[in-house]
Formats: sequence, C-alpha cells, structure tokens
Amino acid sequence: MHGAHPTRADELLGGDIRDLLPRLFLPIPPSKGLDPRKVALGERLFHDPALSADRTVACATCHDISAGGADGKSVSTGIGGKQTTRNSLTVLNTGLQQVYFWDGRARSLEDQIDGPINSKNEMAGDWTVIIQRLSEQPAYRDSFKTLYGGTISQAAIKDAIVQYEKSLNTPGSRFDKFLAGDKSALNEQEVRGLSHFVRLGCASCHQGTLLGANLFQRFGVYRARPGGNGQADLGRYSVTGNEDDRFVFKVPSLRNVALTAPYFHDGSVADLKSAVQLMARLQLNKSLDEQTSDQIVAFLKTLTGELPARSETLEAKR
Amino acid sequence: MHGAHPTRADELLGGDIRDLLPRLFLPIPPSKGLDPRKVALGERLFHDPALSADRTVACATCHDISAGGADGKSVSTGIGGKQTTRNSLTVLNTGLQQVYFWDGRARSLEDQIDGPINSKNEMAGDWTVIIQRLSEQPAYRDSFKTLYGGTISQAAIKDAIVQYEKSLNTPGSRFDKFLAGDKSALNEQEVRGLSHFVRLGCASCHQGTLLGANLFQRFGVYRARPGGNGQADLGRYSVTGNEDDRFVFKVPSLRNVALTAPYFHDGSVADLKSAVQLMARLQLNKSLDEQTSDQIVAFLKTLTGELPARSETLEAKR
Repeated sequence: MHGAHPTRADELLGGDIRDLLPRLFLPIPPSKGLDPRKVALGERLFHDPALSADRTVACATCHDISAGGADGKSVSTGIGGKQTTRNSLTVLNTGLQQVYFWDGRARSLEDQIDGPINSKNEMAGDWTVIIQRLSEQPAYRDSFKTLYGGTISQAAIKDAIVQYEKSLNTPGSRFDKFLAGDKSALNEQEVRGLSHFVRLGCASCHQGTLLGANLFQRFGVYRARPGGNGQADLGRYSVTGNEDDRFVFKVPSLRNVALTAPYFHDGSVADLKSAVQLMARLQLNKSLDEQTSDQIVAFLKTLTGELPARSETLEAKR
Repeated sequence: MHGAHPTRADELLGGDIRDLLPRLFLPIPPSKGLDPRKVALGERLFHDPALSADRTVACATCHDISAGGADGKSVSTGIGGKQTTRNSLTVLNTGLQQVYFWDGRARSLEDQIDGPINSKNEMAGDWTVIIQRLSEQPAYRDSFKTLYGGTISQAAIKDAIVQYEKSLNTPGSRFDKFLAGDKSALNEQEVRGLSHFVRLGCASCHQGTLLGANLFQRFGVYRARPGGNGQADLGRYSVTGNEDDRFVFKVPSLRNVALTAPYFHDGSVADLKSAVQLMARLQLNKSLDEQTSDQIVAFLKTLTGELPARSETLEAKR
C-alpha cells in the first residue's frame, strides 16, 4: 500500500478531512537559532548526575533521548530508589511547548527544571551544591566563562539545559511528510487511522504541532477511570485548588508516542492500542472495534520523527 | 412535565449519564467571605464612569448586571463611540474563574481590570487621573480610609472592584437544584437536552461549575467558521505567538447563557439555537435536528441562576 497513488489517500480521507488537516496539524519545525556550544554544554549537564544529591540521577535518567525522551517506566525512580507519582513526560519537542508537567504547574522550561532538581523523590538537588560541584571541574568553569561570562550561576546552568532541550525537536516524521504534500508517505491503513483520529474526535484535543500539549482536559469525561490509581491523582486541582480542576491534566503530545510507553499520567497502560481504546471510551464515549483501533495505532506510529543525534563529544566520554 | 416523578428523569438520562453528572458538573456556590462594605464600595466604583477618560463609560456600561452581566451587543462601545473587537463576557460568576478575557491573557481579576481601564477603545483610563478624581469626593475618601487605611490607591480600587465582582455569583439555577437531588427541577424536555449535551460531547469542554471557563479550545475543530469575522481574530495566538494557538479561545461559561446573547467572541450569532447548532457542526462534526437543538436550548435555559440584587444605596443614587 505504501506509495499508493496520491488521489487514493485523498479518497480515503474524504475532502472534508483533507481540507481540515492544515487547520488542525502543523509539522514539527527543525530546532534553530541555538548556539551549538551552549547546546553541547546543556547536553553535558543534562547527562550529569552531579545535579542530584547523591550523584546517582541525571536529567537523562528519566529522559533518555534514545528511548523517546522518557524512561519506559510507569513512574520514575529517583535517588535512593524513590518513586515519583507520575509518568515521565518525554523531553523531545519540549521546546515547542508552553506548559510543563502533567498538571501544567510550570510555564517555562527554566521553571520546569526546578521541579525534578528540587523534588525529594527525584534529584533532591541543591543549587548551591550543584554550582559548587560544577565549579570544581575546569572544563565546566571554562565553558561557562566562555559562553556566559563570569562564574557558574543557576541562571546559566538553566539556560544551557534549556538550549539543549530546545535542540530536541523531531522533525521529519512520515506524518509531517504527508502534511507537506507527500501523499505516499502514509499507507492505506495509516490514512484510514488518520481519518478515524479526526472524525472520532481525538483531534479535538490532540491537535496543533504536537498533537496535544497545548490544552488541558479532564481525564475521564464520560466515565471515571476504571480501577488503576487514576482517581488518586487530582491533576491540576493540586496546583489551583479549584474544584473544577479535579482530574484535569495537560493533554500530552502524541509526537513519538510509539516510543513512550507506558501511557497516561500514571503510566498504567502498557500498550498503545489499549491506550487508544481507553481514551475513546473515557473521553469520547465510543467503543472502538479492533480494526479501527489498529488503524489509529498505525497512524500514531507515523508520528515518530527523527531522534536528535547524541553529540560525539558526549559519546566519547561514555 | 415539570414535577415529573424522579425516576422519570433518571430513566430519560440513563444510568450512565446520571452517574456521570457529579463528575462533570458542580453547583454554583453562593458568594461568601466578602466584606459587604468593600463590596458596596466596589459596586459604586464598578458603576462610576469617572474611571474612563471622558467620564462616559463605567465597567457596568458593558457589564450590566440586570442584563446578565454583559451588554447584549455583538461587540461593545467604549468612549467616543469606539468599538471593541470582541463580545463582552459576562461578569457574573467571574470570581469562580481562573483565566480572563477570550484569549486568557489575564490570570487574576486584579489584572483583568487593567484591560478595559487601559484600552483606548474602552475606558482609556489613567490610574493617576482616576485616583485624583476619586480623591476629590469626600464619600470615596472616607470609604477608602475606613476600609483600606490611608489615601486612595490603585491597589485599593482594584481590591474593592474585585470584592464586588466576587459577590456576583448566581447560585440557585434549576440545573443546580437538579444536581442537588431535586429531580423535578427540570422538565422532560430539559432532561433530554441535558442528556444530549453530555452524550454529544458538549460537556467535554463545557463542564465544571461554570460549564466552561476553565479550558481553552480551538474555535472550529472540524471546520473553519463559515463567513463572519471569526477568521480575523487569532485568539490566544495574539497572546502567546504560538502557531498552535491560532483560533484558540477560552471556552466560555454557559451559566446564564440565555441572558447573554449575542454569542461567541465576535458576538456574531444572535440566538442560542443557532449557536448550539453551529457549535455542534464546528466542534463535534454533528448536524443537530430541530428537536435535539430545541431540547439542548431548553436545558441551557435552566442554567440561569439568581441574579445578584443591586444594593439599595446605589439604587437610591440613580
């Protein structure tokens, strides 16, 4: 099917959905306007366990770029084997987002960094200690002096990490090629999946560049999550104290979703097909048959973009 | 139908929707914890055109409490006959909200106030001038001195207006009585409308205490707005500059919606039934038949609560 004649894709989608696509979805732009030296410094910091209290946990511990920018676990493990309460969100394409964490409690990447650094269950770090540790290393001292002037500061550390994070866009997915006009980039099953994705209503929330990540929604519109610990986490309510925010979470991006199992804020669903079926039931009041579910999953797999290459400098150090 | 036996309402709703209601909707709480003297001062300020450059426009000009907290116009008229670009949002229940304006650019009532005060097309006010004008009036001077201590300040003016705005909750709607267990509060048509409202997906965004006002959504998920000026207003994009925020607006509250025609950010739709049908088409990809539309409208009319009484002091001054 791959490479089918363009008109076939249009026919499968229907004119209404085809015309809608540019309104609903945007391709991932390549990372740009970044200083590669700051990116390299940020990459080193991102992978440096010296940022955690006992030097065992780096940012990359729970955000492994080669594993889709997350850690593949239901919830993450911080220092001393401590467990977090939520699933690690991917760091890929994070520079394209405006709100961070499942509950949206940070509005900038700089603020986001304080979350894991300060959390007692994650890195339990201390900026004074971190600055001291880094300052003991001539390579860090030199880099910061060259790139930011003066001694190492919290702001400079954060900026370098943010520069690195902004370099983690994943353009070039097959879906983006399809959006750009290459109708052969998706096969028939994938196009059918895209059509379902839009027609059923998934795209009401999973839209824009990231197919999500720019809206909040209630987890469980039509029914509460059956079982699991989904009911224990109050989501944005824990940030705002507003009754209306109970069980409201950031709609996660579906970019690279095939790489970031397990799913949901509690990481309670291991496979993508079950996640799709659960979403349809909870959010859209629809039971999906096997074929429809498979087609949507096939479409979601086309959202995997080009993973950022690990810098050679860092590779050499491993 | 009004006063039908409770089990009839349950039967019409279906057990699944009935069980879902407490998860989706919360009743409007009465305003509480406010200092009635500050509320009265805020009410006076809210109705005082001295807050606008040429003393012709008060907050209440575009937010008439007795008219549902808005002005009944497509867009509003500020000083010198100038027109705003968006429809006036109701001030009723505004104290229960977390984000303000159609594009969500203010996150507190205090910040919201600066919008209309400073807008050249609305009040074109100047805080220095406002403070000077109010300070010339002994009644204001005395009130501020008693309630806030010292001379009149911008912070005190804002606080008084916010206290007043927080007094504008509208509890006691028939829908809230229904939620509280009085199954006879809605008649059969209204219950059917409620059932459609939830089943069709309206409640995915119009939920919580205010049936909206706590989420953002794209205006036109399934298709762009046909005609009108809906395409000229980029919504949250104008605040964030993020491509994904084009045509994204705050989901408005549906509380007292029967009182706040015309509808949408551009006030381009005059009647509730057309608004409901347009929303179904744009946001849910559904064409509603006449009967369903009428039932939903009947339900929406049960969202009208008890309007706040105008204080006697102010009444006497008119």
